Amino acid sequence: MIDTTRSLTQEPLLLADLSSPETRDLLPRIDLVLVPVGAHEQHGPNIAVSTDTISADALCRAAAGLVGPAVAVAPAIPWGVSWHHLRFAGTISLRQSTLIAVLEDIVGSLYAHGMRRFLVVNGHGGNNAAITTAIEQIKQDTGVPLIASVFGYALIAEQAKRLLPTEAIGHGGGDEAALVMAVEPHRAKPSAFTAPQPTGRQVETAALLRAYGGSLARRYDEVTHNGATGDATSATPEVGQQILDGASRRLAEIIEVMLREADAAEETHQAGSD
Amino acid sequence: MIDTTRSLTQEPLLLADLSSPETRDLLPRIDLVLVPVGAHEQHGPNIAVSTDTISADALCRAAAGLVGPAVAVAPAIPWGVSWHHLRFAGTISLRQSTLIAVLEDIVGSLYAHGMRRFLVVNGHGGNNAAITTAIEQIKQDTGVPLIASVFGYALIAEQAKRLLPTEAIGHGGGDEAALVMAVEPHRAKPSAFTAPQPTGRQVETAALLRAYGGSLARRYDEVTHNGATGDATSATPEVGQQILDGASRRLAEIIEVMLREADAAEETHQAGSD
Amino acid sequence: MIDTTRSLTQEPLLLADLSSPETRDLLPRIDLVLVPVGAHEQHGPNIAVSTDTISADALCRAAAGLVGPAVAVAPAIPWGVSWHHLRFAGTISLRQSTLIAVLEDIVGSLYAHGMRRFLVVNGHGGNNAAITTAIEQIKQDTGVPLIASVFGYALIAEQAKRLLPTEAIGHGGGDEAALVMAVEPHRAKPSAFTAPQPTGRQVETAALLRAYGGSLARRYDEVTHNGATGDATSATPEVGQQILDGASRRLAEIIEVMLREADAAEETHQAGSD
Amino acid sequence: MIDTTRSLTQEPLLLADLSSPETRDLLPRIDLVLVPVGAHEQHGPNIAVSTDTISADALCRAAAGLVGPAVAVAPAIPWGVSWHHLRFAGTISLRQSTLIAVLEDIVGSLYAHGMRRFLVVNGHGGNNAAITTAIEQIKQDTGVPLIASVFGYALIAEQAKRLLPTEAIGHGGGDEAALVMAVEPHRAKPSAFTAPQPTGRQVETAALLRAYGGSLARRYDEVTHNGATGDATSATPEVGQQILDGASRRLAEIIEVMLREADAAEETHQAGSD
Amino acid sequence: MIDTTRSLTQEPLLLADLSSPETRDLLPRIDLVLVPVGAHEQHGPNIAVSTDTISADALCRAAAGLVGPAVAVAPAIPWGVSWHHLRFAGTISLRQSTLIAVLEDIVGSLYAHGMRRFLVVNGHGGNNAAITTAIEQIKQDTGVPLIASVFGYALIAEQAKRLLPTEAIGHGGGDEAALVMAVEPHRAKPSAFTAPQPTGRQVETAALLRAYGGSLARRYDEVTHNGATGDATSATPEVGQQILDGASRRLAEIIEVMLREADAAEETHQAGSD
Amino acid sequence: MIDTTRSLTQEPLLLADLSSPETRDLLPRIDLVLVPVGAHEQHGPNIAVSTDTISADALCRAAAGLVGPAVAVAPAIPWGVSWHHLRFAGTISLRQSTLIAVLEDIVGSLYAHGMRRFLVVNGHGGNNAAITTAIEQIKQDTGVPLIASVFGYALIAEQAKRLLPTEAIGHGGGDEAALVMAVEPHRAKPSAFTAPQPTGRQVETAALLRAYGGSLARRYDEVTHNGATGDATSATPEVGQQILDGASRRLAEIIEVMLREADAAEETHQAGSD
Repeated sequence: MIDTTRSLTQEPLLLADLSSPETRDLLPRIDLVLVPVGAHEQHGPNIAVSTDTISADALCRAAAGLVGPAVAVAPAIPWGVSWHHLRFAGTISLRQSTLIAVLEDIVGSLYAHGMRRFLVVNGHGGNNAAITTAIEQIKQDTGVPLIASVFGYALIAEQAKRLLPTEAIGHGGGDEAALVMAVEPHRAKPSAFTAPQPTGRQVETAALLRAYGGSLARRYDEVTHNGATGDATSATPEVGQQILDGASRRLAEIIEVMLREADAAEETHQAGSD
Repeated sequence: MIDTTRSLTQEPLLLADLSSPETRDLLPRIDLVLVPVGAHEQHGPNIAVSTDTISADALCRAAAGLVGPAVAVAPAIPWGVSWHHLRFAGTISLRQSTLIAVLEDIVGSLYAHGMRRFLVVNGHGGNNAAITTAIEQIKQDTGVPLIASVFGYALIAEQAKRLLPTEAIGHGGGDEAALVMAVEPHRAKPSAFTAPQPTGRQVETAALLRAYGGSLARRYDEVTHNGATGDATSATPEVGQQILDGASRRLAEIIEVMLREADAAEETHQAGSD
Repeated sequence: MIDTTRSLTQEPLLLADLSSPETRDLLPRIDLVLVPVGAHEQHGPNIAVSTDTISADALCRAAAGLVGPAVAVAPAIPWGVSWHHLRFAGTISLRQSTLIAVLEDIVGSLYAHGMRRFLVVNGHGGNNAAITTAIEQIKQDTGVPLIASVFGYALIAEQAKRLLPTEAIGHGGGDEAALVMAVEPHRAKPSAFTAPQPTGRQVETAALLRAYGGSLARRYDEVTHNGATGDATSATPEVGQQILDGASRRLAEIIEVMLREADAAEETHQAGSD
Repeated sequence: MIDTTRSLTQEPLLLADLSSPETRDLLPRIDLVLVPVGAHEQHGPNIAVSTDTISADALCRAAAGLVGPAVAVAPAIPWGVSWHHLRFAGTISLRQSTLIAVLEDIVGSLYAHGMRRFLVVNGHGGNNAAITTAIEQIKQDTGVPLIASVFGYALIAEQAKRLLPTEAIGHGGGDEAALVMAVEPHRAKPSAFTAPQPTGRQVETAALLRAYGGSLARRYDEVTHNGATGDATSATPEVGQQILDGASRRLAEIIEVMLREADAAEETHQAGSD
Repeated sequence: MIDTTRSLTQEPLLLADLSSPETRDLLPRIDLVLVPVGAHEQHGPNIAVSTDTISADALCRAAAGLVGPAVAVAPAIPWGVSWHHLRFAGTISLRQSTLIAVLEDIVGSLYAHGMRRFLVVNGHGGNNAAITTAIEQIKQDTGVPLIASVFGYALIAEQAKRLLPTEAIGHGGGDEAALVMAVEPHRAKPSAFTAPQPTGRQVETAALLRAYGGSLARRYDEVTHNGATGDATSATPEVGQQILDGASRRLAEIIEVMLREADAAEETHQAGSD
Repeated sequence: MIDTTRSLTQEPLLLADLSSPETRDLLPRIDLVLVPVGAHEQHGPNIAVSTDTISADALCRAAAGLVGPAVAVAPAIPWGVSWHHLRFAGTISLRQSTLIAVLEDIVGSLYAHGMRRFLVVNGHGGNNAAITTAIEQIKQDTGVPLIASVFGYALIAEQAKRLLPTEAIGHGGGDEAALVMAVEPHRAKPSAFTAPQPTGRQVETAALLRAYGGSLARRYDEVTHNGATGDATSATPEVGQQILDGASRRLAEIIEVMLREADAAEETHQAGSD
């Protein structure tokens, strides 16, 4: 069990840092590859379009640093499915099919080298359906023993709810702004921090459908006038660091459970085939 | 507001019942089209492979009957994304891309005739990612004012939790078996009703990832030996009817909210463009 | 040889009625799967848009009932390729690629369970090219011993020509209307029964190309003003039942020939590899 | 009306002969483009793999020569859908999707230049489904006033039946061999002319399904041992020329009907929009 | 080593000339298949749209004649990727994906028959990216020992630079016009021979990007007013024949090197696996 | 004209640094977007798999810094088409279709915001065909005034040839190693620097085909045993910085030419439409 109270972490193992022979030699000791998926998408006036890439990548690096070199981090996918934000300047959106293809290619390549356990860490809600589709497709095609996803923002929001006022939580809100201030300060825009401007439209519909496992397809300009749904004014870098520390500890714990149960499942499987 | 206490409902408006001129004449009065999506997938020994199609279709018909002829029901899609069940005999699975294409074609055709509001009612969890992808794609391509999805099983489980023991709830369990007994009795197999045979593998991993908005890609034979995760032995047709009545009332309420808020959004939009 | 004079048939074996273990146990005895393909397409004022689905499904069920439980029926595909009818309200059209994908997925799934003989029974002429493409693709990809298609409407028209005046035969005409009256009476609209309103355009061209194995791509509003090419006014449910009985007997005879010759071909093949 | 008794024809107008400015200047006078589609597929020992390309191209050139320069000929597509012949050496097969794409690109390009009437002349039965799919797709996408197909071999067989014994008619048989002898003599192999070697398998099944508008998906080695179903021994170049003359006269007549009815349809259409 | 000084060549081995049994018997002696890829694309007023098909095919036939029957020639692909010429009448353009699919199908079919070495001879620069993509995809999918491409026009231009003034070299210029005059004289238009009409736009940009391995995506009407960039007025059939002779000798030499090195690589490979 | 002698550059304008309103406000002043494309691919023992991403991104940033804020830099695409390196551990490869889709989505999104000039700066030769295909497709689909590509490694090699011995130039060689040492020192592995281990196979073939505009499809293990073709032992960070400075100055000059000629072309175009 990792000691999640320690504040100092190791340097994370980044695949991009390695030469090919180094990768080859480390392969037997890599138990899991984290694949961060971000977005290049408007977050209102408060923070840069790279926010979700920053948060997914930072979570992966911090968690990998906590768990140690059995967990490697792939290069972050720096855009996601953001068609609903395209009316706000600067947003780059992949089609769902493109993101699925990118994930298939990344995981398929690493699988070809012998890696067998993958966790996609997703920084942007709009990517969820494409990621689920991709990992199911990869599982079906390759039979890979472990492929899974986690929504990194859920980890972040869990921490933020304890540290920030309720109205801070949301797209482009204080939770995300604080994290950006801590990790890439020049991509936060504190002089522009402001409250969200929700349109108030279809609020109950969206909540009901979400509560019953569904969703309402909406462009974001139907949701908010300034592109944000959270209030960034309470964000500070200190809170951002606390959010990141807490969320990455939680992610490290999840990883520990994943690896332990995956080991057990493989033992069962091997015993069953004796 | 509909009176959701009444027990008798009207006959639902089914698109398949209409001739072309009848459809043309009714078009101005159709406020919403429900599109049921099912599955043709093993549900253990307890119930037929058509269970999820039965439940999605029954929910749509009952809710449409409650709300009245402003809500029409499209023919049910009788299969879904069930690759993870293919090792159990009888399962038919669409690829995700196929289900997405089918939904695009159905909604695209109806949109061409002038219909503008759509709710996909999904009977099978494995379809969720494809349905989300499809409705977002349709929204992006057509700008349709309202397209959304709801997970019908979430409506059913909500009712079942009040009427059946906890262990009855689950795939192929008492909740689904009861509903099939009520709607298509010859597709329930009471003489085979039995308890589930979970493998116990990766239980905590799956729960953690789900709690944080992610998922674990698994074949169902990695989850349960007999294909079920719920205990069907407590199912009765009476409970099934109660589940269907309660769930369809809830769905009718959600539809009322959707239509009311959609009307309001369109008024706002028109006012805004004056 | 089946006794095609008997008027009473058994209940057909429907895949949708079975649980997974029931399917598994029946698999060794299922010699052929019928896959009905319909349409959701305007048929003029006379009959509902579901006409071709009704006829394909009814033919399959009746023929399967005649031949017995060695022939199973898959769930009907409730839409087809109907782009040429989209200017008439109510029509839902799949792209050709979608219908091909659906057929690949259905047959591919059943093939994975060990089924080896398939007959697609098509209720709608517009589906023919996509179905031919699909079954050739499936043959090429899987090497399945028997995959074939038959145009159900050709079986129906053969009977109708003996029972109805010539002008009754055609799209939305008395042949189809009679069958709908017999099978799903509420989907026939006798009060609207009327004669067709052909445009008279390109009649000779279409006939010549058809005679020489080709076709003329036309929207149906280029062919007929009211969407029908047959006269429905002579339709009665009694004639409809006679059409269905005769056509399903003929289909049962075809199935007998298919199975007998397929058995012989497999014996030859096995003898050849000794 | 063309004088179909004349034996001398003009040089056909070939698009490949023209420079771009020549094409531009001729465009207003081109009423129809013929698109020959062939195959590169085994025809038994009797004739070259290019047989169907030769026949489709020869038919188009001869018919265009008869009708005159209002009819242009596109370059022949020198392969087709021949997956079922791939076990015989030399066969090149396009996937159905490839042939559809090629046709879409050819017709789409010519449509962009203002051409509005197209007839695909198909030399190979295995192409029929893909060609039908393609022309329907093109009609749907562009609304092109006239797009159609004809099966050239049906025109050839009609003539051959009057000139050759019944057993000569068939794949790689005397009808095709005679035509090749007349048009490209070095691609006929008279020293190898022989009778077909049918397997005798599934003969009744195939005939029945064909009679009822369906088909049986088969590899050609399931049909014939030496790749032919017709007897080439009676073929002569003189008969080949007679076949070609008769078939191209018939094609010219069909083209005349097409153009006359298309003119009438456009007049009706214009009158209707006045 | 072939004697490239001889002026008379053998008849080239064309796959289209062979029957299936002839192909089967020759297969062990075919060391290489040449696949000519052309275009159907405007070349200004000087020459026909089929110019690039003519040149690719002529090069392949001549080189195959020089090397002898170990080198076979596949039917030429008579169109290419010419979207940038579509504003000039007569151009037919394949999408890149279509050309890739055609190449995959041709080579895939021949590979299935046992052929193992392929050289795509490309007559049109616009095809280069699609051809490179296709041959890499084929290599990756099949592991075929030798698949490569050469730009036939580079071979032609090398010769032309020695025989014609500099301004003659270019699209639709004297180099191509001379070759067409030699090979298919009726497709050259000497009465229309003229100088090019370059727009002068982005000349330095295009040259710089090309010098550094890149490219500028341009429609050809942005490059030249009359569709040509070379001056055709100096073209003669004699020069055309000299160009063809020289270029095909050079191609034959390249083929010799390819085959010799491929033999050596296979020996090394076999030695390595002993 | 920029002063390419100055050694200090401005901070480059990175799209990822901007919030949405900042992007909106800067849009009118952004004349060009650079899109760096890299690879995640083995480079022998000498340098990390991220080498090509490092070099493409560094070139773009340095050149953008030289030209000033009229040139913005998009996030680097951190992988490319590297199927031929997949037998060396660590390589991640996109399919060509995936890279094309990613480029279409990135440029398509930015085009939707009003950006109109794009230069793809490619760090990896294996990407060239896909990038050419993508920019031509984008040009065809959108008519974007300026879209082009440049091969960054050609810029680097030009400098390196003046600063390093000939044998240093090549894949994973001293040129690339020096640049990585200068930009991301921890991704160079000087203790492992070594000479390449070429196989010597098909050297003349590859050179000849390249000289004539073609290519030879090869896996990289057919080319070199240790994954490198250049000798890294002469690399130093100082040389790397000189290479980067020289190459980015050259890139800045090219950009200046592009923008100047694009301005001129637009003026001509506007004058033409007056």
